[in-house]
Amino acid sequence: METRCARGLEHVAIAVKDLDAAVHYYVHVLGFAPPELEVVAEQKVRTAIFGHGMGRIELICPTDSSSGVAKFLEKRGEGLHHICVEVDDIVATLAELKAKGAALIDEVPKIGAGGAKVAFIHPKGAHGVLTELRQGGR
Amino acid sequence: METRCARGLEHVAIAVKDLDAAVHYYVHVLGFAPPELEVVAEQKVRTAIFGHGMGRIELICPTDSSSGVAKFLEKRGEGLHHICVEVDDIVATLAELKAKGAALIDEVPKIGAGGAKVAFIHPKGAHGVLTELRQGGR
Repeated sequence: METRCARGLEHVAIAVKDLDAAVHYYVHVLGFAPPELEVVAEQKVRTAIFGHGMGRIELICPTDSSSGVAKFLEKRGEGLHHICVEVDDIVATLAELKAKGAALIDEVPKIGAGGAKVAFIHPKGAHGVLTELRQGGR
Repeated sequence: METRCARGLEHVAIAVKDLDAAVHYYVHVLGFAPPELEVVAEQKVRTAIFGHGMGRIELICPTDSSSGVAKFLEKRGEGLHHICVEVDDIVATLAELKAKGAALIDEVPKIGAGGAKVAFIHPKGAHGVLTELRQGGR
């Protein structure tokens, strides 16, 4: 019996070089309400989150040149970085991915913001899209 | 008085080479419910839409090598293609963008799926993200 279930898109993340300039654009040009700002020390990024609940837009900006996001910006410039999918059983989803030989960045979930379990799938294992899986938290 | 308002992320679009294979991955590996399938003749793509309402995931696959999405796939491979933001006044938003000198693909809204008004902003005008604005419809 298949019991795993994806609840949907939790957020889409966009890498930007200048967080203030990008926030200004989303608020004053596109018309979003001011975002929630956060520093994610572990990933060496500052984030600006637009919206609440599912389907948020998250701007991510490196705080240090050794951040993975800094390397992305150097190579690709500003742009869409990853999606985050909310699942109800992250361990089972990772096991399914591993069984299919998908490229995983995290074979075991880590504890992310708000206590959620999170794990990243390499774009090679996810039709070209860096994909964060997330279960619970907040 | 500022009256323009963005309602949030309407969808994120992902360009794929093989729609059936990508749908299989989203349904049988990530656990999404089967998508709604659609052909958008004007843009020469087939789409698979996961979820309802705001924050959907849309897979797009070219039906013809002259499609913009086919060119994207040739150049960049599979991956995140664009975001769509629901706004309450697309004409005012486009005017604001134009006044700021942003690169617009459509200066005037076109009528898209479900009767919505839609217009694209070039990534150069939107911090690296091809951005569809959408008002109303469905």
